[in-house]
This record gives sequence, C-alpha cells and structure tokens, in this order.
Amino acid sequence: MLQETQSASPLYVRIATTFTRQVASGALRAGDRVPSLRRLSRQHRVSMSTALQAYLWLENRGYLEARPQSGFYVRTPFSKLIPEPQFETRRPAPAALGTDEILSNIIAAAEDPANIPFGAGSASPELFPNRRLGMISRRIIRQQPLVNSHYVFPPGAELLRRQIARRAAEAGCNFSPGEITITCGALEAINLALRAVARPGTVIAVESPTYFGILGTVASLGMRAVEIPTHPQQGMDLAELDRAICKHNVKVCITMSNCQNPLGYVLDDGYKKALVQLAEKHNLIIIEDEVYGDLVFEGPRPRSLKSFDRRGAVLLCSSVSKTLSPGLRIGWVAAGQFRTQVERLKLLTTIATASLPQLVVAEFLRSGGYDRHLKRLRETLAGQMEAVRQAIAKYFPEGTRISRPAGGYMLWVQLPDRFAALQLYRAALAEHISILPGTIFSAAGRFKNCIRINCGHAWSETHDRALLTLGRLCERLV
Amino acid sequence: MLQETQSASPLYVRIATTFTRQVASGALRAGDRVPSLRRLSRQHRVSMSTALQAYLWLENRGYLEARPQSGFYVRTPFSKLIPEPQFETRRPAPAALGTDEILSNIIAAAEDPANIPFGAGSASPELFPNRRLGMISRRIIRQQPLVNSHYVFPPGAELLRRQIARRAAEAGCNFSPGEITITCGALEAINLALRAVARPGTVIAVESPTYFGILGTVASLGMRAVEIPTHPQQGMDLAELDRAICKHNVKVCITMSNCQNPLGYVLDDGYKKALVQLAEKHNLIIIEDEVYGDLVFEGPRPRSLKSFDRRGAVLLCSSVSKTLSPGLRIGWVAAGQFRTQVERLKLLTTIATASLPQLVVAEFLRSGGYDRHLKRLRETLAGQMEAVRQAIAKYFPEGTRISRPAGGYMLWVQLPDRFAALQLYRAALAEHISILPGTIFSAAGRFKNCIRINCGHAWSETHDRALLTLGRLCERLV
Repeated sequence: MLQETQSASPLYVRIATTFTRQVASGALRAGDRVPSLRRLSRQHRVSMSTALQAYLWLENRGYLEARPQSGFYVRTPFSKLIPEPQFETRRPAPAALGTDEILSNIIAAAEDPANIPFGAGSASPELFPNRRLGMISRRIIRQQPLVNSHYVFPPGAELLRRQIARRAAEAGCNFSPGEITITCGALEAINLALRAVARPGTVIAVESPTYFGILGTVASLGMRAVEIPTHPQQGMDLAELDRAICKHNVKVCITMSNCQNPLGYVLDDGYKKALVQLAEKHNLIIIEDEVYGDLVFEGPRPRSLKSFDRRGAVLLCSSVSKTLSPGLRIGWVAAGQFRTQVERLKLLTTIATASLPQLVVAEFLRSGGYDRHLKRLRETLAGQMEAVRQAIAKYFPEGTRISRPAGGYMLWVQLPDRFAALQLYRAALAEHISILPGTIFSAAGRFKNCIRINCGHAWSETHDRALLTLGRLCERLV
Repeated sequence: MLQETQSASPLYVRIATTFTRQVASGALRAGDRVPSLRRLSRQHRVSMSTALQAYLWLENRGYLEARPQSGFYVRTPFSKLIPEPQFETRRPAPAALGTDEILSNIIAAAEDPANIPFGAGSASPELFPNRRLGMISRRIIRQQPLVNSHYVFPPGAELLRRQIARRAAEAGCNFSPGEITITCGALEAINLALRAVARPGTVIAVESPTYFGILGTVASLGMRAVEIPTHPQQGMDLAELDRAICKHNVKVCITMSNCQNPLGYVLDDGYKKALVQLAEKHNLIIIEDEVYGDLVFEGPRPRSLKSFDRRGAVLLCSSVSKTLSPGLRIGWVAAGQFRTQVERLKLLTTIATASLPQLVVAEFLRSGGYDRHLKRLRETLAGQMEAVRQAIAKYFPEGTRISRPAGGYMLWVQLPDRFAALQLYRAALAEHISILPGTIFSAAGRFKNCIRINCGHAWSETHDRALLTLGRLCERLV
C-alpha cells in the first residue's frame, strides 16, 4: 500500500518535501532552526550526503537559509511572499461559448507522455490504490463470473449507492440509497442534471473562472452561461449572483464550494447556507460539483451545499475519478426532486454504467481503508502543490500572483497584465510542457493573463525545471 | 466454452430444439420421417424415455405427427402457417414524444427475476463468453495494474479501435482505427451522433416501428421524429422517405438495416445502395444502428449501410452489448465527416469510456474465437426464436401475425385489431410476464395491437407456459 502512494522522486526530494508540508501547515515557522544534518540522517536512516542534498534542495528553493557556524534555518518561503490572484468584479452577461478547439489539444497534450502534465486535471497513477482495486476486481470476477453479462439499469448498483449514501454523511448529507443515480463519472452526472432542469436557451450561472468542462457542456447543450465574479477565497459574489438572477432570468447555477476548480477555495458553512437561501428565494436550482470535496488538505471534511438543501433543489454531482480511479468511470448524482427525470435521461443516454466498476468501488468503500487512503493522498497533494507554488514564486516574473488552495489538484496563477496566457500555453507546449490558458475557464474570454497548473503529479526535478522554463518563457514572450 | 452457451433447459428440450432449428433452416421439411426413437437415443446418448420426451415435446408443439405403426413425421409447423405482420402505409408527420413512463416500468420489470423476460432486449447471461472475458480481465489487471488509473480520452483505446476497424471489413467497411470513437454502448454513440448532426427542433426520420430508445433519445434532445412506414421484410418505404424529406425538411435518418429492432429483417444490398443514394440526393445524414448486425441467422455477414457511403455522411453506431457483454458498456461510432464533433461531445458528456472494458474487448477480438462464438450464438438464438414463434402460433388468437426475423433477438407480434397491447402488457405484468406494448415503438402511438417479444433467453417449459398464459389473457381481455 505504501508503495502505491510513494512518488517516483529521489529520496532527498521526498525528505525535503516533508519539510515543505510542515512549513505549509505552520508546524515550522520562519526563523526556526531545523535539525542538524546528523540528526536528519539518523531520523530518516539515510546517509549524511543524502541529508545534505535534502537541505541544499530546500535552500535552493528558498525554504532554508544556511547560517555559518550555526546550521540551517527556516526562512519565509518565497511562496508566502507572493500575493493571491486579484478579484475583479465585472457585471455578468450571458455568453454562448463557441467550439473550443483548445479542448482537443488539451487531450492530445495529456496523452503524450513526453509532456510535463501541468495541463489536464489528472494525477500520478501511483497516487491511487490500484493494487487493492485490482485485487477486488479480480475477486469479484472470480466470485461472480456473470457480473458483466447483464445491464445494471438506472439508478445503478444498490451496493454502491448504499456506500455512497453512507459516506455522504461526512459531508452532512442524509441520503437513502434510492436518492442516488450512478453515472459514467461526474461530467455525465452534470450533463444529466443540466438536461433534467434546463433546456436550450436557459441561462446558467457559473463561477468565473470555472472548470472548462462545465462551460463546454453548457454550450454543447445550447444553454447560455453567465459568469458570476468569483473571489479567489470567498467564492461567487452573492450580491452579483442575486442581481444576475433577476436581470438575466437565471434558472440554474453550477457551483463548486469545496476545492473549487481552478481556484481551490473551500467556502465556509455561513456562505453555503446563504447561497442555498438565495437559491430558495429565487427558486433557483443548484448543480453542485463536488469531485474534489474529499481532498481538503486540513481539518474535517467540509459540508456540501446539498447538506443545506431543504427543497430537493440542489443536485449533488460527484465521482471517484479524483480520489480512487479515473478509469473506472464511476460518478453519481443525488438529484433531489429531479431524480426520476435524471434516471430516465441516464437510461436514454448510456443505458447503464459498466457493471464491474460499480461493484469494485462499492467493495472498496465497504471494506474500509478509504479514509486512510484519503489522508495519505491529501498530504501528498498538499506537498506537491506547495512545491509547485514555491517554484513559481521563485521563477516567475515579478508581479505574479498564485492561489492558495485549501484542497484539490489545481493552482491558479495570475501573471502581470502584459503577459498573454494563450501565447505562453503555445510556447510551453512547444517545449513539451502542458499547461492550461485561463481563457478556457471563462465563457466571455476573461483571464487572458492567467494559467492553471495541475499539481496532481509527483513532484520531481523535471517539474522544477519545467517551471523554470515557464518562467523564462514568460520573460521572453513579453 | 460449450457450457457457457448451453441453456438451462432439460435435456429433452435441448434435443428437441435442435430439430426446430433444422426445420427452421429447411434441413427438415414437412413429410420427412425423423429418426426412430432407438436411433435418436443412440445418437444423443440418452435413454429411450428421454428420446420419447423430446418427440412428444415436438409433437405437442406441432412440429411432428405420430403415424401409427410408422413413426414420427415432420409436419408443417404452426409457425409457418401464420402470416407476417401487415404493412400499412400512412403519411408520416413529425411528432414529439412525451415523457414515457412505460420506460421505467420496463426497467423495473427487467430487473425483477420473478418475471419472464420477454420485455427488455436482454439475453441469457449464459449466451455470453463470460468465462473467457473474465480470464482476459483478470490477466489484464495482473499485467497492467495501473490500467484504471488514467483516463482513456476520446477517441478511445487504440488497441480496441484497431480490432473494430479490422472486423468492420466483414460488413464491407474499410476503416482506419482513427475513424472510430469508443462510447459507453451504442446508445451513447447514437446520442453523440444525433447531437453532432442535429439540433433541437431538427426533424429526424425513423422507421415505424423502431426501437423505443431511439424515439426516447430523439425526444429527450428536443428533436422531432417523423415515422416512415416500414414493411416487415422490405424496410422503410423509400418513396415515403423521399416525400417526407421534402415535405418535413428531414435532415437526419436513423435506421437499422441489419436485424432491425423490432421487425428483425435484413435488407439487401440493392436497398441499401438505394437508401444511401437517396440520402446523397437530399444531403440527408444517416445514423445507422448496427447492434444486431453480427446476429444474422443464415448466410454471410450482411453489409452495413456505411459500406455504401462515399460522403462520410453515414454515422455507424454499434456495440458488443448484444453479442459479448452488455455490462462492459462498450460501443462505438464511425462518424465519418463528423468525427471531430463526436469526439468533442464525447469528451463533454462522459469524458472517457471505462479503461479496462476497452482492453478486454480488444483482447477478446484480437485473440480469435469471436466467429466461433457468434456461430453458436446465432444458432441458439434462431432456435429460441423458432420455439417462441411456434408457441405463439399455437396459443395466440386466430388472426395473429408474427414477424419472420432474419436475425437478432426480437419477434414482432400483431394481434387482431380488437386487441389492445397496452392492456395485454399490464395484464401480463400482473402474471409476472414482461412483454413490450407496440405503442412505445412509435412516436405517433401506432401499433396499438402489437407486442414485441424478446427471444434472448434460453427456451424452457416456463416460457412455453408463459406464452400459453399470454394467449389466454388475449382471449380474456377482448
């Protein structure tokens, strides 16, 4: 098990990144003296030379400073000195997104192993409990040889729905298995939810920036997105949402309140309650995308918006693609009062979700160990993200701002105004570095000087060099 | 392998059904004397009493008659005396199908093991090569432990696309793997195809009767279906299609020319060529549903419509759900000139198809034995279908007509006008017999006196009794 969540980085990098986590969590503060090399080498059972490499790596990244005759001390990391992206409010207006050719480039870039994978929202395969999932799969095939010989019609396998309902309690939801419909990942859930509650032409409020898959889906269904200005820590501006609902006759809002993609914030219960109340007031339907909800770095699992819903008008969409396995394609929707419509649309879109993956996820969740796995995964992601933040802080042009995510995979980087993210995206791809330009996170073409960096992959020297290259490309492109 | 395609019926039924197949294929004809009981018992290595049971079973169903002092002779089976459904031409007009509550009942009925499964289009699990698919699955998981740890983005696994392209040659198609997009079953393929070529309001020509999933999909996308009168052997009336295209501005036609569901006909190459030419003339796009194309009972694999297409304007949709495994959820579309749009919509609907099932099907197709499996499956289905036809001929009211399918799972039964299929459907369900009422195969509510019988399940005494019950229910309901 341990092996599965280990990164492929050299030993000294792994030792060093435990420090970055302690710095990120505040366990180590600027001015603290760190253990001597001798103590570090004993502690991790490594050679003195490996211990030194770890400290030099940290010094190089600005975490430590060496004081002559005294040892290594924690310094204020570069990444703490760098501000967060700016919040610009702008009056929202509905927009229809055109055919987005960048989408297919993103895929091509993600599939090419020669590229540094800062683009698509994927994670290192090693982060997932593949061995245990594989064992469970093989056992089920052996014990139930007919498992794939029939359709598991909507709402999907009862065993799985029961486990999802049980776990939903962590997010404050009190579901029965009957309220859940299994889907082929969360994006199918969002598609079905949208089709159940809206029709072509309906105006859908979205965060700005928001996940490009949501924008693409809204546009592909002939609906129109209206972007609500979204603060990098405090989420959608509720006053603007209120105004937009009235002005543009918004009927539906798609939102992520836990580990928003791409900003990474987690909203507090007060905000969530206020948003649900606002929705009640206007009879607004909310589609909640919760795929990163289990990946909050610190503290308890935050509540979902759905847990505040009394009308059955929040449709919670989620999956195991970000936590257990993207390739099993298991997602779900708790569609409240729209359950029947969603089930019917599921039947008319993909008939059923693949049989075996449903039972595999059910058994994984039933047999325990998911929380242990999540704890390790969160720590790893937090470490990787901090390493990326640190490198960006060091290598990117002055005036760059970086988000401070509370969880998930994603970093949002705001370059000074004079930089064009689309140009950087293209130049980076030529250097085999895949990133995403900010513009695709907006239906109105905003965020021209922003990029999204996926931090789902094991941190390595190669990644460090790639960020150095990105920083240099910025300078060159101006 | 043999075991997997064996039915669960008693030995004498299995012996008897080999006869029904020989009768159906014409190898045995009316008036032929069949082997003596002694010879039959030696031939099948069964007791004389089992041999006698087999002949009595066949006599009871009207296949044999006993002549005193002489033995058993083949008689003209009841099912040959019964006519095919009538072809009624009727001027087509577009219709939008309302929310169809029968759909969820169909699913509930299909999921209840207490019901005789003449309803949903499923087959006995034993008909599929589950053991070999399971072995392949376990091997892949062992050899590629990371198989489910990443997305297989559109167009899908190259290994699978290569096998599909290779096999498509049997249907006269010359594909490169790049022309194929993998989907979650054929219905997702049809959904994506429709969304790529049409928009809400577009008028779509469909066969009448046609698969209710197509009608539901068309309606759920806000499109309108216009039903083209369809002959039980000769398919859509092309003159009516021609008129409808002009009159109703039809842009797209969804059609099954091989083993049409529910009528079961296979159209000849002349018809297919003519349909493709008609489409060319009007710049009509064709979505071809080919899920039963591999299941033609006699002769070589028929050509697909797509094989006559020179414009890239036929979108071929198919799957392995009817031949290998419904639960793997593997389908595909060869979308011609609409490939890019289909790939993009796939990405925005379900992102990717589950990873392992793609490799499993690829390996099954690569490693051979598919043709052997198909041969057995076709024979079994032909036997099951003939047994159902025979029982209907015997038990149903005078004036009943039955389709003579050339392949697939489905029988279409036309009751005399005074019978209401919807009533029969409800009464049958109360007796734990699931059938489908003809009305759901029409957007305009036609076929009020028709039912569809799924013949995918192993024939047994219970099925025979269920058809007797259905026959009696008919009499009672008038």
